[in-house]
This record gives sequence, structure tokens and C-alpha cells, in this order.
Amino acid sequence: MSDQSYNVVTLIRKKRDGEVLSEEEISYLIRAYTDDKVPDYQMSAFLMASFLNGLNTEEAAYLTKSMLHSGIVVDLSETSGLKVDKHSTGGVGDKLSLILAPIVASCGVPVPMISGRGLGHTGGTLDKLESIPGFTVDVNLDRYKEILQKQNLVLVGQTEEIAPADKRLYALRDVTATVESIPLIAGSIMSKKLAEGIDALVLDVKFGSGAFMKRHEDAAELAKTLVGIGEEFGKQTIAYLTNMEQPLGNAVGNWLEVKESIDCLNGGGPDDVMEITHLLAGTMIYLGEKASSVEEGIEMSYQAVDSGAALQKWIDIVEEQGGDSSFVKDPESYPKAESVTPVKSDRSGYVTEMDAFALGMVSVELGAGRRAKEDEVDPQAGFVLHKKIGDNVEKGETIATLHTNKEEMLDAAKKGIVEAITIRDIEPKPLRRITHRVDKDGIHDFDG
Amino acid sequence: MSDQSYNVVTLIRKKRDGEVLSEEEISYLIRAYTDDKVPDYQMSAFLMASFLNGLNTEEAAYLTKSMLHSGIVVDLSETSGLKVDKHSTGGVGDKLSLILAPIVASCGVPVPMISGRGLGHTGGTLDKLESIPGFTVDVNLDRYKEILQKQNLVLVGQTEEIAPADKRLYALRDVTATVESIPLIAGSIMSKKLAEGIDALVLDVKFGSGAFMKRHEDAAELAKTLVGIGEEFGKQTIAYLTNMEQPLGNAVGNWLEVKESIDCLNGGGPDDVMEITHLLAGTMIYLGEKASSVEEGIEMSYQAVDSGAALQKWIDIVEEQGGDSSFVKDPESYPKAESVTPVKSDRSGYVTEMDAFALGMVSVELGAGRRAKEDEVDPQAGFVLHKKIGDNVEKGETIATLHTNKEEMLDAAKKGIVEAITIRDIEPKPLRRITHRVDKDGIHDFDG
Repeated sequence: MSDQSYNVVTLIRKKRDGEVLSEEEISYLIRAYTDDKVPDYQMSAFLMASFLNGLNTEEAAYLTKSMLHSGIVVDLSETSGLKVDKHSTGGVGDKLSLILAPIVASCGVPVPMISGRGLGHTGGTLDKLESIPGFTVDVNLDRYKEILQKQNLVLVGQTEEIAPADKRLYALRDVTATVESIPLIAGSIMSKKLAEGIDALVLDVKFGSGAFMKRHEDAAELAKTLVGIGEEFGKQTIAYLTNMEQPLGNAVGNWLEVKESIDCLNGGGPDDVMEITHLLAGTMIYLGEKASSVEEGIEMSYQAVDSGAALQKWIDIVEEQGGDSSFVKDPESYPKAESVTPVKSDRSGYVTEMDAFALGMVSVELGAGRRAKEDEVDPQAGFVLHKKIGDNVEKGETIATLHTNKEEMLDAAKKGIVEAITIRDIEPKPLRRITHRVDKDGIHDFDG
Repeated sequence: MSDQSYNVVTLIRKKRDGEVLSEEEISYLIRAYTDDKVPDYQMSAFLMASFLNGLNTEEAAYLTKSMLHSGIVVDLSETSGLKVDKHSTGGVGDKLSLILAPIVASCGVPVPMISGRGLGHTGGTLDKLESIPGFTVDVNLDRYKEILQKQNLVLVGQTEEIAPADKRLYALRDVTATVESIPLIAGSIMSKKLAEGIDALVLDVKFGSGAFMKRHEDAAELAKTLVGIGEEFGKQTIAYLTNMEQPLGNAVGNWLEVKESIDCLNGGGPDDVMEITHLLAGTMIYLGEKASSVEEGIEMSYQAVDSGAALQKWIDIVEEQGGDSSFVKDPESYPKAESVTPVKSDRSGYVTEMDAFALGMVSVELGAGRRAKEDEVDPQAGFVLHKKIGDNVEKGETIATLHTNKEEMLDAAKKGIVEAITIRDIEPKPLRRITHRVDKDGIHDFDG
């Protein structure tokens, strides 16, 4: 890293005028910002210029590198084998981490997973884990390494040492309308993931009404940028574009999603969840060099569920991180929300569309999520869908069950569910759950 | 003004996405910023979004109105008659205010003129006025009104009460690379001018190497925006697009320009200076309703010089504002800089081009200007050009005379002058000094 110093106004002006910044320039800017030499008001002008004029993949990689090196890169060499993680850009009902992490770990690939909390319409892995009484996601780096070495798996939250520049930049972007920029998002994701100490990464980039990226082309662009950055850092990175036009699986809400994950690890669970889980898990096993192809990895993933090895790994990690595994062994023993209420369909037909964003917001209303960062979440709250796109519904049939401790929200939530689910007479075409794979060779149509 | 409150991130996002903001939204944003409820980092993101996505004339007018009403609008009703001011977007050697203000005032039109200081390659009227020993430009509002009432003229600096929001915004734009935006420039100019208490305004919008706007089309766009805002406020506003491809007149530097202005008021002075001065002065006299047409106003302007009335007004205002008028009466008595040094031409031919920006920077090197706001200016420093575009030059002939108290800068300054003046064998076509007039009816080719 050079010690050269730059005139910050000149750097802002370059980006404002659509020019490309050098590695030294971006590195200087991020370092000076982290060292409080560049004030927020200059950084926010730079962020807006970057939002509107873009950053190319090299610039995004330099940004990632600068944010990565603002903190420590964890050394996981004590644990043998290639460490592989998965990152999802987030969606409604996305509990895949809870299922694939124990599958992959039980297949011999170490999974060091640092996750986030829910905000807005999407849930967060940490909130889901914390719905298991006693489960702690706040550990220091020594304990992080120790759990991984012992269990081949660790599931925790971001510490202060991980990419602090990203943390500050993200907070600034949040209040300056500069969040939804593909290179800025990519830099934020990759700086945190690379800091974990991984050797390879699988990305689940979602598109559709319940995703951060509504449009398929934006999701594809993000996937390409993420893979490009991963490869710049010499980490094998494979991304899949997956459909978030409807919630993933049936359960939406913290404990409800953990419960569905346990069903999955017991060999049950919804098809859509398991199809994507096995694909992502198989890819991780392949990247961890425990399988010679993604297909073989998928085969191993199925076996890990069938044999009970993945469930046992789940019980082990819950216990290792202080959680009460009795609820994993007997999910029905988990205390229920005060109100468990069915939502009936007001007409017959086929479910043709779901507004996953609106459904995510219903779960927030019921208590499962956060409107603002400081809000508390209710582990019991949420809903279970009984119908998904393509299903036939009779008038009066239960389409969802609401779980909440806020009975005053029930009427609005019922209305929200009914409005978010479109029922028509004609059966819709099946949704493509996974449309593309993106790797270092480019973007490929996914044929399953 | 409504008391409605808005989510600032939503307002930034709207401008980021190229939407048009309402009067209430812009008013809220500026008011909240002035009241310290919106931090600099949000305002700078908004400014960058406005820079890149633009503000339309209505938005620029709302911005102007908000900044105008962040301070007081001076009530000049004690002085009878329509008050008319002139504003120039600034150029090298632009001393027109010093000549036309006494002309117009002596013709019976009150001129309340609030000016700025020089920065970068252009000088500032206040610095020029202060080169007259004793002349004070810092007066309070009561004294401002009193001087105007007594002299029909007042020449001062911006007070804290005038458009404080503009002052804060300008300081923020300066450090966030958001200065060169036409609507932001227009809002800044017009909020200050409208706060002076004027009834009508003449604008000298310059284009070319020595102007803020290098390109004619940008100057035209700025002129249209300025006139549009003026008309939105019910103030007759007429703009001229004038050439700044070479310095205006021969003198560049504070006292040297005052001296040239006195020559002009004595009936001498360079043609280019007097042509534009009489046009702007005539337009002001017309707008002040002391002439029935611009042409008649121009005729009165000539007469004011010929009769000595304008020079007498100049002596009166210098004395009124504390200046030593002996230097006005006998400019040769002003102390000279330590070094007065000729620059010789190294070839024969015609002057075909001048880099007015580079010449402005030479005057800064000699001590006449500021690189940073806190720099002091030397009233004696600068240079006088003996040749302008179109003039014939012999090798060894003096093309300029440098005045400085920084002898160590002489070699670099000589080199700078020679490099900034292009001499070729073929006589160039004459420059059009004034290309267009912009008024409420649109932009018109100017035929003199």
C-alpha cells in the first residue's frame, strides 16, 4: 500500500466526471476515511458520484481490498482443509444457511460463517439462530477459530475487527440513499466474506419481488461483479441466480424457519428449499475438494441428510454455541405464540403470484422483523404458508397460519396476506427456481 | 412556507433517481440544513445527485427562494427609484463594476452592489476596492442603506444576514466537488442578488478560457437559468454573453485595475472594457427607467463619462466609504511595487490567442490573488498587457509589464506570460466581444 496522499476533492471530481480511479487512489480514500482524515460529507459525495457513475470491477475489487484491510483477515490455518462459505443476498423465508451449513460441515468441508441480522422485509440468520434459547452468536476471534476447528462449522455475527471501514461506509450509505449500488454492495459483501478466512465462496444471488434486486438483470450484474471480485482475490467463487418471486419454503419468521430447517434435516421440508440447498451445498463440497464435481457434491449432500449426519452436526453446533438442543430434537416442544390463526382464501383457483416483499413486511408487522436497527425481534412470530405459486386453492381453505404475540396486528396481517397472494382461474407456468450459474468463465443458463 | 417534515433519505433518493422535487421538499431540505437538522453528509449526497442529475428552472428557483429566505431581504424603500445591480460570473481583468456603478448612479439609478472576493484565477471587486487606502467594504445593514440613500450607490461585501444558507452550501460545495453545476451556481448568485433589495438585474455571463464557464453553451445555459429565476421572482433580468478568451482590458491586478477604471472614467481606457461597460450601464439605466430604451441608456452612459459626472460619483463614493480619493484624482501618486519589469516578445507576428486562465494564474503568482480563501492579496501586484488578440508584435517589443513585490516569482511569471500568449504570422479574425442577449423572451443573437 503506498503512502501517497491525494487531494480528496480531486478524487471526488474524477468519479463525478466518470473517470476510473486507481488502486492507490481508492486505497488512500478508504484509509483516510477510516483514519478520520476524510469527513463523512466528502465520502458521501464520493459515494453518490460512485452510485450514479458506477465503479468498474477493478475499482470494486480495490474498494473491497481497502475495506478488507481496514480490519484483520482471520487466519484459519489451524483448521485443515479448504474453508468454504455461502452468502445469500437475502430474501423472504431464506433459511438455507441453517440447512446447508451442517450438511457441508458433516461432509468434511469447514464452514466459517459470519452472518447478519434482518432489516426491513428480509430476515437475518443471526436472529433465526438466537430463537434457539441459549444460542450465542457473539464470540471473539479465538473462540471463532476454536469452534470451527472442533466442529468444522461456526455460525456467528460480525465482530469489530472484521472490515470496520465497511461498517462505517454502510452506515453512511444507509442515510445518504447510496445503498442500492451494485459495486458498493459487492464490495461490502466481499470485504466481509474475504475477512472470514475462506478459500472459496458460493453465492446465492436472488431476484424478484422479495429480493434486494428486483430485476433479473441487476441480479446478474451483481453476481458477475461478486464473482469478478472473488476471482481477483484468487478465491474460487460460483454464484447462482435464484428466484425470489415468492418466499422460499413455507415458513417465514425466526423460530418457524428454524423449525422448517430441522424438518429439512430430518428428510422432509419443502421441495424448493431442498432443491436450492442441495445445489449450494453440493457446490460448496466441490469447492472444498471433497467431491470431484458439483453433481457428486449434490449426491453427498443428499446422503448427509439421509444418514442423519447433517442433523447430528446441527445438534452438535447448537450445543457447542450454547443453544438448547432439546428444541432441535423435539421442535414441537418450543413454546407457541399467543395467537396462532388461520387465514382463509376468499376465492377458488390457482395461486399465480405472490408479492414476497409484501409478505416479508407482514412478518415484520407480526413481530418477526425490524423496521429500524434498534428494534427487537420476536422469535415466535411469523407465518406458515400452506399454498405456493401453482397450487390449487378452494374458497375457505386455509392459505396461511399466522403466529404472533401482537393480536392487534392480526386483522391487518390477514388482509396483507390475502392481498399479497393472487389467485386466478388459470394454472400458471411453473417458476424457474434457478436460472443461471455465474463463474469465472461467465454466465451460463442453468439447466438443473 | 409549509411546516411539513420529510424523510431526508427519501428526498436524496428522489434526486438520485432523476425525479423533480417540489417547492415544499426543497424548502424543507434547505431550512432543515440551515437549522442543523440535516447533517453535511446528507446535504453533500443531495448536492452530488443534483450536480449529476440536474435541477430544472423551477427547482433552481425554489432553491434560490429557500436560500434567499434563510436570511433577510433588505428593504431599500427609503431610497426612491428602481434599484438595479449588475452581476458578472467573473473573469480575468474584469473591473467593469468599478466603472459602470458610478456611471449608472450618476444617471439617477440607485445601485446597491454586494460583491465578493477573488479566488483562483479571477479577481474580486472587494479586493480591488480595498486597494484604495481606507476604503471599507464591511458595513452593517443600516449603514448600507444610508450610503445608498445618500450616494445612490453602495459597494460592500456580503454580510452574515444575507443568504446564510448559500454561504454554508457554497462552503460545502467547495469541498465536495459540486461547485460547477449550473442550477447550483444560479441559485447561489440569485439568492444573494435578490437579498440586496434590487428591482432589476443585469448579468454579464462570460465564456472562454478565462471564464468560470469555458464553453459558450454552458454560459448560455447559465444565462437562461439566471434570467428564468429572476423572472420567477418578478425582477426584470437581462443577461449578455461576453467573451473571456482574453483578459478584459489591459490591467490585471487590484490597484492596476482600479487605475484602469479611473482612466475609463476620465474618457480613456481600452475599447473592449468601454464597449461592454456602456452596454451593461445602458441596460441598467433602461431597467431603472431613466431611459426609454437600452440605446438611450447607452447614450446617457457616454454622457456621464464625458461630463465628468461618473468620475465625480466615483470620488464621492470613495470618500463616503472612507477611501483616500487623492489616489483617484492622481493615480500616478499611488506607490508602485518594488519590481516593475517588462516582458519582451520572443518573436514577431500577430497575437492570435491568449490563455486567460493561465494569465489569471500568473497574476496570482505575482501576489494579486488567492490560492486559498485565507491568503492575503497584494494591492500593487499584477500586470499590464500592451498587446491583445489581433495586435501586431515585433520581436523584442514589450508585450506586458509585471508589477510585483515577489521578485523571486519574476522568471516564472515572464515564462507564464510568454507561454499564455500565442503569436502567429497570420492576422486572426476579430473576436466577438458580446455574442448574445438573454431575456424573458429567450436568447437573441447580439448585433451590437
